[in-house]
Amino acid sequence: MTLIEAQVLLDDFRADRATREQVLQAFQAAPLADLGYAQVDTHRSLRQGFPEVIYGAGKTPEQVAGIAEKILERETCVLATRVTPDHARLFQSRFPEAVYHAEARCLTLEKRPHPKRSGTIAVLCAGTSDLPVAEEAAVTADIMGNRVERLYDVGVAGLHRLLARLDLIQQARVLVVVAGMEGALPSVVAGLVSRPVIAVPTSVGYGASFGGVAALLGMLNSCGSGVTVVNIDNGFGGGYAASLMNALAAGE
Amino acid sequence: MTLIEAQVLLDDFRADRATREQVLQAFQAAPLADLGYAQVDTHRSLRQGFPEVIYGAGKTPEQVAGIAEKILERETCVLATRVTPDHARLFQSRFPEAVYHAEARCLTLEKRPHPKRSGTIAVLCAGTSDLPVAEEAAVTADIMGNRVERLYDVGVAGLHRLLARLDLIQQARVLVVVAGMEGALPSVVAGLVSRPVIAVPTSVGYGASFGGVAALLGMLNSCGSGVTVVNIDNGFGGGYAASLMNALAAGE
Amino acid sequence: MTLIEAQVLLDDFRADRATREQVLQAFQAAPLADLGYAQVDTHRSLRQGFPEVIYGAGKTPEQVAGIAEKILERETCVLATRVTPDHARLFQSRFPEAVYHAEARCLTLEKRPHPKRSGTIAVLCAGTSDLPVAEEAAVTADIMGNRVERLYDVGVAGLHRLLARLDLIQQARVLVVVAGMEGALPSVVAGLVSRPVIAVPTSVGYGASFGGVAALLGMLNSCGSGVTVVNIDNGFGGGYAASLMNALAAGE
Amino acid sequence: MTLIEAQVLLDDFRADRATREQVLQAFQAAPLADLGYAQVDTHRSLRQGFPEVIYGAGKTPEQVAGIAEKILERETCVLATRVTPDHARLFQSRFPEAVYHAEARCLTLEKRPHPKRSGTIAVLCAGTSDLPVAEEAAVTADIMGNRVERLYDVGVAGLHRLLARLDLIQQARVLVVVAGMEGALPSVVAGLVSRPVIAVPTSVGYGASFGGVAALLGMLNSCGSGVTVVNIDNGFGGGYAASLMNALAAGE
Amino acid sequence: MTLIEAQVLLDDFRADRATREQVLQAFQAAPLADLGYAQVDTHRSLRQGFPEVIYGAGKTPEQVAGIAEKILERETCVLATRVTPDHARLFQSRFPEAVYHAEARCLTLEKRPHPKRSGTIAVLCAGTSDLPVAEEAAVTADIMGNRVERLYDVGVAGLHRLLARLDLIQQARVLVVVAGMEGALPSVVAGLVSRPVIAVPTSVGYGASFGGVAALLGMLNSCGSGVTVVNIDNGFGGGYAASLMNALAAGE
Amino acid sequence: MTLIEAQVLLDDFRADRATREQVLQAFQAAPLADLGYAQVDTHRSLRQGFPEVIYGAGKTPEQVAGIAEKILERETCVLATRVTPDHARLFQSRFPEAVYHAEARCLTLEKRPHPKRSGTIAVLCAGTSDLPVAEEAAVTADIMGNRVERLYDVGVAGLHRLLARLDLIQQARVLVVVAGMEGALPSVVAGLVSRPVIAVPTSVGYGASFGGVAALLGMLNSCGSGVTVVNIDNGFGGGYAASLMNALAAGE
Amino acid sequence: MTLIEAQVLLDDFRADRATREQVLQAFQAAPLADLGYAQVDTHRSLRQGFPEVIYGAGKTPEQVAGIAEKILERETCVLATRVTPDHARLFQSRFPEAVYHAEARCLTLEKRPHPKRSGTIAVLCAGTSDLPVAEEAAVTADIMGNRVERLYDVGVAGLHRLLARLDLIQQARVLVVVAGMEGALPSVVAGLVSRPVIAVPTSVGYGASFGGVAALLGMLNSCGSGVTVVNIDNGFGGGYAASLMNALAAGE
Amino acid sequence: MTLIEAQVLLDDFRADRATREQVLQAFQAAPLADLGYAQVDTHRSLRQGFPEVIYGAGKTPEQVAGIAEKILERETCVLATRVTPDHARLFQSRFPEAVYHAEARCLTLEKRPHPKRSGTIAVLCAGTSDLPVAEEAAVTADIMGNRVERLYDVGVAGLHRLLARLDLIQQARVLVVVAGMEGALPSVVAGLVSRPVIAVPTSVGYGASFGGVAALLGMLNSCGSGVTVVNIDNGFGGGYAASLMNALAAGE
Repeated sequence: MTLIEAQVLLDDFRADRATREQVLQAFQAAPLADLGYAQVDTHRSLRQGFPEVIYGAGKTPEQVAGIAEKILERETCVLATRVTPDHARLFQSRFPEAVYHAEARCLTLEKRPHPKRSGTIAVLCAGTSDLPVAEEAAVTADIMGNRVERLYDVGVAGLHRLLARLDLIQQARVLVVVAGMEGALPSVVAGLVSRPVIAVPTSVGYGASFGGVAALLGMLNSCGSGVTVVNIDNGFGGGYAASLMNALAAGE
Repeated sequence: MTLIEAQVLLDDFRADRATREQVLQAFQAAPLADLGYAQVDTHRSLRQGFPEVIYGAGKTPEQVAGIAEKILERETCVLATRVTPDHARLFQSRFPEAVYHAEARCLTLEKRPHPKRSGTIAVLCAGTSDLPVAEEAAVTADIMGNRVERLYDVGVAGLHRLLARLDLIQQARVLVVVAGMEGALPSVVAGLVSRPVIAVPTSVGYGASFGGVAALLGMLNSCGSGVTVVNIDNGFGGGYAASLMNALAAGE
Repeated sequence: MTLIEAQVLLDDFRADRATREQVLQAFQAAPLADLGYAQVDTHRSLRQGFPEVIYGAGKTPEQVAGIAEKILERETCVLATRVTPDHARLFQSRFPEAVYHAEARCLTLEKRPHPKRSGTIAVLCAGTSDLPVAEEAAVTADIMGNRVERLYDVGVAGLHRLLARLDLIQQARVLVVVAGMEGALPSVVAGLVSRPVIAVPTSVGYGASFGGVAALLGMLNSCGSGVTVVNIDNGFGGGYAASLMNALAAGE
Repeated sequence: MTLIEAQVLLDDFRADRATREQVLQAFQAAPLADLGYAQVDTHRSLRQGFPEVIYGAGKTPEQVAGIAEKILERETCVLATRVTPDHARLFQSRFPEAVYHAEARCLTLEKRPHPKRSGTIAVLCAGTSDLPVAEEAAVTADIMGNRVERLYDVGVAGLHRLLARLDLIQQARVLVVVAGMEGALPSVVAGLVSRPVIAVPTSVGYGASFGGVAALLGMLNSCGSGVTVVNIDNGFGGGYAASLMNALAAGE
Repeated sequence: MTLIEAQVLLDDFRADRATREQVLQAFQAAPLADLGYAQVDTHRSLRQGFPEVIYGAGKTPEQVAGIAEKILERETCVLATRVTPDHARLFQSRFPEAVYHAEARCLTLEKRPHPKRSGTIAVLCAGTSDLPVAEEAAVTADIMGNRVERLYDVGVAGLHRLLARLDLIQQARVLVVVAGMEGALPSVVAGLVSRPVIAVPTSVGYGASFGGVAALLGMLNSCGSGVTVVNIDNGFGGGYAASLMNALAAGE
Repeated sequence: MTLIEAQVLLDDFRADRATREQVLQAFQAAPLADLGYAQVDTHRSLRQGFPEVIYGAGKTPEQVAGIAEKILERETCVLATRVTPDHARLFQSRFPEAVYHAEARCLTLEKRPHPKRSGTIAVLCAGTSDLPVAEEAAVTADIMGNRVERLYDVGVAGLHRLLARLDLIQQARVLVVVAGMEGALPSVVAGLVSRPVIAVPTSVGYGASFGGVAALLGMLNSCGSGVTVVNIDNGFGGGYAASLMNALAAGE
Repeated sequence: MTLIEAQVLLDDFRADRATREQVLQAFQAAPLADLGYAQVDTHRSLRQGFPEVIYGAGKTPEQVAGIAEKILERETCVLATRVTPDHARLFQSRFPEAVYHAEARCLTLEKRPHPKRSGTIAVLCAGTSDLPVAEEAAVTADIMGNRVERLYDVGVAGLHRLLARLDLIQQARVLVVVAGMEGALPSVVAGLVSRPVIAVPTSVGYGASFGGVAALLGMLNSCGSGVTVVNIDNGFGGGYAASLMNALAAGE
Repeated sequence: MTLIEAQVLLDDFRADRATREQVLQAFQAAPLADLGYAQVDTHRSLRQGFPEVIYGAGKTPEQVAGIAEKILERETCVLATRVTPDHARLFQSRFPEAVYHAEARCLTLEKRPHPKRSGTIAVLCAGTSDLPVAEEAAVTADIMGNRVERLYDVGVAGLHRLLARLDLIQQARVLVVVAGMEGALPSVVAGLVSRPVIAVPTSVGYGASFGGVAALLGMLNSCGSGVTVVNIDNGFGGGYAASLMNALAAGE
């Protein structure tokens, strides 16, 4: 039941073309939440300036481009994650202004540049192999309207590299900390700041890393306060949550 | 090396009672981070108004009270988690103004009431058995200076109970969602709001819930955006992270 | 918003005491599903003759009796599962007509005997140690209005015991098959009938049974068609689902 | 021992051409269940109108077609699951009337259209990636003689999509609910209906979804009553069990 | 249908008091395997001299003694495993000739001494903490009529202790090798003999031994040929299987 | 130290060309077990008529053939397991009398036919997909000198197929029972015989079968007595152990 | 065969009272390793000054004291781990000079003080709850003749505490690093030194720490070079290995 | 802040061009540990003569060669692990003096031969399939300046092969013991020596070896004292740790 239909029904009721029972039944059969749908959607759009995200894995280049086309009919930007060079080639032939972030495995397109929120989101990663996940987080946070500071290759086995960037770390409003293997970096970072730390475990490692389980468990058991965790390799989820938090800080 | 010692050393250097090499070596041997310690600590104290938290499990009533005493020498409030009635009895005989939150298994003490931040943190839980963990989150968020809205027993198997509170849910700045068994509540909530959702799995359940693993996995794999997760039964961690986020929103 | 309130609002609207916008907003703010609640509840009550079930574990005897009292204000029967002798003692002192099923760890109370559906639900179990779970299933199915046929101690290591009851097995409309250890019984039973088989793994066993995981996995991987599985030791869940299926068969 | 042989033996016994001991020994050596074999088989065939199913994975196109040929000698329909386009090509060249359900990875062939039972089986799925499993369930239920209602992409993170179909959901006799990731959909659906809900976890997801384990555990721990579970990605098993239940409802 | 009943039925048939159809139906309804039951049982009894075993865990002293009483009505010996001193006290007050094997947690009773088979079963264990499980295996093998050679505390970290008993090891017909922790002993033993080695993992160990899983996996992955494995702590199972093998060797 | 060297040393000692200390030291340095090596080997060879087995996986065709060549210098037969058609092609070009068992993925070569032991080893398997593992067991048992009876596709979901072969099952001296999925067959078989049952879990199955773990756990938790288990897919191990047991029975 | 017996046999051989074959056979039957036993033992005793260790868990106070008595007949010191106050009470009543390390749950006794090796073993732990395990390591290393430096409560969430002790850390020859929860400390320490780091995971933590598994996996996946790991809570193992390494450094 | 900058700042302070507060702030902002960086690095370089190691997996041949080039600007040797023949081809075309260790999957290059430390590191492995991991350990230890003794194919199922090398085993200062399957070799070796044993589990095995988990658990639960463990297949880690220990022994 669309909003129009609901209005028509109520008018019918008032004009005695419908009974009270019919009105109640109609709202029960087509639950009002359906009306709320468009509303929530608009609300979300207005507040975050951000539409649905395309998860590219398992979709054909044609499908990714098609969905993007549909989104761009009513939105000013689009983000596709987990895309391959094949996805990118077709996409850019259709949307020449699109940017392909090869490392992040993402495609982004902004019809016009959005102004960025004040405050930065820092994205840290432990090793160079964690880069694709960290970049996915960074690209996500960027397209969602945030300034992003990247601090890569600052793993705990070489503490000096981390401490040398202490000022940047302490200036960030939200920190996304990406690490594989033993996943210790978020604990160390959380001890240095008083800001939310989002830990992103990666599947980097071998043997008993069990595809990221070791890092995931390490992060869930972090002795540092203020650490929350997302799924293994979920850079997008980390960047998305960070953006929600930074939007809060920006008073949105 | 304390701050005083550092100052003395620098004065000695200027007065030629110490060489440049001695100064450099001293800072290297007793790393400057040590100086930073008091600073960070003060900084943290100033910004968050919140000192170290006492984890009561495995500590005697005497130990919990003793640590609290030491903290209260320089702080205006204290929080102890995972305490038993025995801890509470001794604690309250020493600090009559302390409050024992039996359900939350927490003790709190504020020398004087703190003003609360604007904005609310909503704490939701799925079933009545999740209450102790939800209350731990709520008490933590409260003592850290936040207004807390409790929405309990709103599990996904009875959707109407959740939808009936939709306005409260959508008004919250940060949401802590506590659930055991299949841990589905955070996914549903994240679909209804555009705010950070912190998911707290509980060990509630039996059989193949494996002490909270089922709920934890459910939350990590949430199809809802903006969901981050803390350790099983870690109500304190959820409340703490929520407070950091709300502090951001309050412009702190 | 109760049904009464909704009716009043609509009358106000028709009488021009409320605007169309107010009506729409009211339904959106207090979602209609809330109205549906009582409806669904009544509907459920009418169709199944069965109210909310009390899960006794972790509740005091006083709490169990109290909840039962509240349910009995508007319902004609009540079921409490996972109760101890202590629960039973208090319960029966308050409700002398209540029955305590010690083996099943259940309490039941029917204000007046319900007629039973046609068709039987067979509850099978592999070993004597599986009895408490099997009895929980049987008592649940019985109080929900079904005839129950118990076939116990018919494990696969002594096939003759099972085959000796073949007629009873093949006459049942729905079969609840309870087994621990390797959990093989449902596969064998499913090969003998063309009816839904609900497999209930139990935590019976030791060593590598891992508290019922071996039986659970065995049942999920059953080579028999038509087998569905519930959680470990979840006799109630097995009996409940069986009753829903038998109600279907009874044309309800 | 065939039925004929058993009759001959008994006649021999009566005519004193065999001793009582010989009769007893013969029945023991060639167990009577063997007689029952053909019987059960016929019985099954008569009652369900459905023969053995061909599991295509790991079989060559030639083998699948060969088995189908053999089945069709005495049956009027055939179902092959987990087939590839290669299987389909050969199959359809042999049986031009066969239907290849690409999404469901199934082949079906009905010599003549079967009448459908009254009552519908609803097949729901959470996301578009769960489609192959949902379609396998739907195609299975359909070929087994049931009307099937498909409700796809109704995951819990967008509740309005699910609630908008509430009437269809509540009219179904049996519901097969397919979901990957956190597997929360069955819990929500079970809270909206009073019918058997068969939950089918899928291996959709990444990281800590562990190939469907997260969804499986979520479903086993469902807080909704009446939910039973089949193996990961086992759409066939879900559709098959649903058909057995719907056959019950049809009074078969 | 008992053997007597079957004979009566056949006589009735011959005497024309029953039809051929009635005979066939009777055998189908009460499957002949039921007749086979007593037979198999007797056969088993004759061949192995060994009746049903009482698993004491979870049974009351009264129950264990009661079952034993019933078994002894028709058998000449009885074995109860996993019994406590409480079980033993009551048992021995009823059966003064019973032997309580405290270390093995077993009770045995032989009405008269059985002759032992030729050939020995060697029971080895790695550490002193494995003793209860090893003794359970040894007592089981002994009461089942085998000569048992015990070689305890011969773990692989002190190879000389094992090699010092090489002759005894090589003379055994079957070897039951009990070990906890890393469970390496069966591999070493299998390299020294050409006889069946039954490996019994124990739950001895701590930390990452996971209650015997480490030992179990070690044994399943044994590089030694001829090693088969039973469940964790299943000394009875090891002794029982060894006895079946030794009976083979004795030409039974 | 070879046997020759040991003899020389002892002669030197007797002839006073070596001291007692030198003899003792030599035996300690080059441990006597080394001498024993050849002995054990010969012993093994004599008793079992069976040399080292070639595990083909991960070896080149050239390597497999090379090792076989070396073995055949002093042995009369050879067995290679887990070989591919590529291995087979080269092998048979070198040894035209070799037999390639494609289903079993084995190569065997006997210079002259060995007489078989009395008594049969029965190899059962539950489904057709378990065939490669069952055949590996059967080929292994056969080449090691045993009569092998194959009973395939006798899974527990169709009990009549198993019971129809009851006589063959009960005549076997040792039974190797191969099953994937829920692994229930060994339990059922063990209930029908009084002989050693070796259970071989296979990785057949999908979803929550976890590559054979479900079957493995089912077998370890078997309620049938006399069941021992080998590693997942380890048909060779099952056949080898069965041969050791049958050799016992043959009085070897 | 004792050393004496071996010598006698050789003398008999030289004196022609035994044949060469008898000598060879004797050494084969009673393997020479048996001779080596006493040797190895003495060797070990001489080099390490350290006898067998008593694992107290599961032993009675009487047993622990009895074993100690036997060891002290020929040794100058003894160590018992995992002892309770009850063990300690009886032990000290028998050996008044024994020391009970309550925190470490150890008893030690040295007949006379041993000189300590040069070089220190540093024992670090992350949190106060890790103390019992750290102390077990420290007490073990101490009684084995090493100087031990304790650095406790230096977890990674408060880096300044660790860096403040950098000099002590860098002076140690071997480091035993004890940590629970996420187990990140060894990685950080390994980045600061070029010495062997032995990581000891503890079962400290809750929820998804799984009794130390999270810490164990973290340590096995450490990004720091030179880290090796022992079992969960195995402080003794850590201290023992550290002592072997420090003995190497001391030129022993 | 570089060392130069620090010195300039201090000179400015002494010359009154900077205040004491400025100095303290500068050291806090750019933490002194940064200065320590170069120092630690040099120290490490001087003491171990060994630079950063290149992990080849996931890097292109071009990248591996490029990193090596950069390292060789200031170092005299380089090690790359987990390289493929493709990596080797390019590498050797650039650095003709480089050695490609195909079995070990390593590349090494020494500008000039380093003298080796006294004392040997023994590298043992259980089976031929463990060779790549063992060789990685051996090549690592060798390039780090150690004499390496290889003892391969000495698994516990053929004890004589191990005992035949007892002298070499007992002469080693440190032992790296590599094993897959049940991982029993380190326990046996640790019982024969009083030196540190580093256990390296390999992913060799099938079925329930779970990619090396069985071996890993076996080693962590080793009953032998002095055993420490590294990650699955981590030959490099084993060789590296062994070199640190041998360097200690050499008085470095």
